[in-house]
Amino acid sequence: MNVTIWNEFRHEKKNEKVAEIYPAGIHGAIASFLGEDHQVKTATLDEPEHGLTNDVLEQTDVLIWWGHVAHDEVSDEVVARVHKRVLEGMGLIVLHSGHFSKIFKTLMGTSCDLKWREADEKERLWVVSPSHPIADGIDEYFELEKEEMYGEHFDIPNPDEVVFMSWFQGGEVFRSGCTFNRGNGKIFYFRPGHETFPTYENKHVQRVIKNAVKWAAPSSRAVPVYGKAKPLEPVPGQSE
Amino acid sequence: MNVTIWNEFRHEKKNEKVAEIYPAGIHGAIASFLGEDHQVKTATLDEPEHGLTNDVLEQTDVLIWWGHVAHDEVSDEVVARVHKRVLEGMGLIVLHSGHFSKIFKTLMGTSCDLKWREADEKERLWVVSPSHPIADGIDEYFELEKEEMYGEHFDIPNPDEVVFMSWFQGGEVFRSGCTFNRGNGKIFYFRPGHETFPTYENKHVQRVIKNAVKWAAPSSRAVPVYGKAKPLEPVPGQSE
Amino acid sequence: MNVTIWNEFRHEKKNEKVAEIYPAGIHGAIASFLGEDHQVKTATLDEPEHGLTNDVLEQTDVLIWWGHVAHDEVSDEVVARVHKRVLEGMGLIVLHSGHFSKIFKTLMGTSCDLKWREADEKERLWVVSPSHPIADGIDEYFELEKEEMYGEHFDIPNPDEVVFMSWFQGGEVFRSGCTFNRGNGKIFYFRPGHETFPTYENKHVQRVIKNAVKWAAPSSRAVPVYGKAKPLEPVPGQSE
Amino acid sequence: MNVTIWNEFRHEKKNEKVAEIYPAGIHGAIASFLGEDHQVKTATLDEPEHGLTNDVLEQTDVLIWWGHVAHDEVSDEVVARVHKRVLEGMGLIVLHSGHFSKIFKTLMGTSCDLKWREADEKERLWVVSPSHPIADGIDEYFELEKEEMYGEHFDIPNPDEVVFMSWFQGGEVFRSGCTFNRGNGKIFYFRPGHETFPTYENKHVQRVIKNAVKWAAPSSRAVPVYGKAKPLEPVPGQSE
Repeated sequence: MNVTIWNEFRHEKKNEKVAEIYPAGIHGAIASFLGEDHQVKTATLDEPEHGLTNDVLEQTDVLIWWGHVAHDEVSDEVVARVHKRVLEGMGLIVLHSGHFSKIFKTLMGTSCDLKWREADEKERLWVVSPSHPIADGIDEYFELEKEEMYGEHFDIPNPDEVVFMSWFQGGEVFRSGCTFNRGNGKIFYFRPGHETFPTYENKHVQRVIKNAVKWAAPSSRAVPVYGKAKPLEPVPGQSE
Repeated sequence: MNVTIWNEFRHEKKNEKVAEIYPAGIHGAIASFLGEDHQVKTATLDEPEHGLTNDVLEQTDVLIWWGHVAHDEVSDEVVARVHKRVLEGMGLIVLHSGHFSKIFKTLMGTSCDLKWREADEKERLWVVSPSHPIADGIDEYFELEKEEMYGEHFDIPNPDEVVFMSWFQGGEVFRSGCTFNRGNGKIFYFRPGHETFPTYENKHVQRVIKNAVKWAAPSSRAVPVYGKAKPLEPVPGQSE
Repeated sequence: MNVTIWNEFRHEKKNEKVAEIYPAGIHGAIASFLGEDHQVKTATLDEPEHGLTNDVLEQTDVLIWWGHVAHDEVSDEVVARVHKRVLEGMGLIVLHSGHFSKIFKTLMGTSCDLKWREADEKERLWVVSPSHPIADGIDEYFELEKEEMYGEHFDIPNPDEVVFMSWFQGGEVFRSGCTFNRGNGKIFYFRPGHETFPTYENKHVQRVIKNAVKWAAPSSRAVPVYGKAKPLEPVPGQSE
Repeated sequence: MNVTIWNEFRHEKKNEKVAEIYPAGIHGAIASFLGEDHQVKTATLDEPEHGLTNDVLEQTDVLIWWGHVAHDEVSDEVVARVHKRVLEGMGLIVLHSGHFSKIFKTLMGTSCDLKWREADEKERLWVVSPSHPIADGIDEYFELEKEEMYGEHFDIPNPDEVVFMSWFQGGEVFRSGCTFNRGNGKIFYFRPGHETFPTYENKHVQRVIKNAVKWAAPSSRAVPVYGKAKPLEPVPGQSE
């Protein structure tokens, strides 16, 4: 399977603390554990076409998206391209602050807004869909000692499935692992991953992302045919 | 309740057959049966701001949308305005060819494409959610002797509820009555209503639209608060 | 609307603390606030047929259920009777420890098991479906200073809608307000209400139950016809 | 993966027409194409414990169920055993007239009733969830020239996903491929397969069942822990 990991890659260049945690960038950190099982490419905002040319996207089975401070710098053309590929069947995994990315908002149709707080607080992610393949190998819950808080209401459409629900020390809850089907494509939103914490080094987080990549793999099906259709059975007035 | 009925209002002006069926426009036909129970306004494409000023939208509890040949002429600004109001809680009922309207595509995040055919064929709408208030007073099914066909695959997100499923004479099926929650707002898509048939004179169709208006009424709740949030419980690092 | 409130009514008789909080029984407490808007009856375990005769059920639009220590004493015959009425359209609101009642387990098809703890801890219920009529008039969240904890995994089918999610002081989360459609009937499970706390005196809890009663009202529809069916269109071999 | 195919195996013994179509029994026909990819066992009603001993079930990853005229002869004890295993994670695929089996009704909590007709009529199954792995390799639709009709309303809980919707020549529609999650287990109901037609020889039907077996595979997770739980965070009154 061909996995492309897209990262805004700005915090790592500007913030020493982030650079220390993710010396190869967040994309590099994710690539290192996904590379065990898949053909992995990375792409970042400041490359031409953000590294997401038609060719790259055509050859991508699952795209992973991390962005935060520069959502607006992602060109509408590239967003439209990614959107089209998702509807055609490419899997998409949106991480953490990617909730506010153009591509996620376009696919959801809502504001994707939420509550947030940076307070070094504890997050505990509970499995609420124990039969879901994305929860494979995960215990009843796992903890992240320090994370940014995201709290409800999370303004998304009702997910097809809520796999994880988070408890935060400061008193909030959050739907932290959500699946959505759009067109021929599968989408997974996964909450954890603030840039100032080594969240993507966490074995549970890695396992969830690995599971999600498998789950989001495209089906081997042609895109449905749309538009004017001849009848399959006799009808009174076949306009031709 | 204040209901605003928006109609493109082009077919009625250009096509004698349509004008004969709907002498007061499709909006007029719908207004006449909704006016029994609600305060009804109409608005059409060629009015300033398409008749959907901020004032009108502020005072609208449920908006009904019929469009077909001129989706592209609806200004992006008005679409954004309607979108905002839906997320704030205004109900939205999208009829028939409105599946391809900018507002519906924006709210769905998918192509909203489908198969179609104009062949004077029979449609039979089956109730698949018998407990749903939108099916109130409707028998197991009702028939429309002649309608345009819309067939699956209908490229929408999984609806929150599928109330009606259509059988078409030519061999297709379709999810004809679908509900979606987006933000604080409720959306109902209802398939029937091609302009060359007197579908909105049908008592069952009228009952469904009446039910849907009641169902889509806004809740009396403030829009959730988003953004930076103080903790409700003690946390280690309250960034201030 | 005719609302019947069923209560096991054992704790109130045996436990002084409970009797002090609910001198008229939990059913009496609920009846007093629902009685403002509806025709209210109560029924309890130790009455003949548990107070749920065919006549009573026939005349009940929405049934409320509170049980805890004596689930097994509810006769299978009465459970079957209630089950039949729910599928016919009667609304059912299951409260708190009613998650383990025979009727709820029968309707869910799962164990309905969960984690629990009595530790006088705080529960905060967050609204996650802001457009839902059951959340009408409820702020972003409300708190119960002391409640029993119920924690995930809650072994229920995926709810049709999750209206509330609870945060517990001890570190758990819970899907606290869940809707389910079964046959012609609507079901709402609402978590709070441990017998040793005055939870049903809480204004928010009362509002939710009032909203749920309205939401669960039966539709005016006949039960669908099942069994052998004549074709509605010509078919090759009409077996007669 | 270990797949057990359970068949009532009565029609094949009593009805020559059925015996001719399925000389090795329906279970034999299914075993022959699933055996290509999996360890396959069969079990039938008239074996001791219906062939579903604790040992057999313990070693079963996915159980397939076909029954029709003798649902009542399946012992409640075996049904309880299968039920328990599904909640523990065993996949379950219920075929055709299995909709009225004790195990399916127990898992659904509804009557599972429907309309039916034997009239040698055409069924066309449309894919409505194009991204679903159960639709992998299936075109937009496939046809069965002669099948029994099953029509809505199908009295089941809202499925987690509707993969196929059927069109019938006689005018009905049906949710023909439905997924349900219950406990740790995944369930797929698939409509086609009347005993007097060679439906299980159809390549599309075989592909769907093969896909469903893969989809229903158990996750590698322990069953969640239920019951009394110690707090994970400090709470005021830790009752011990």
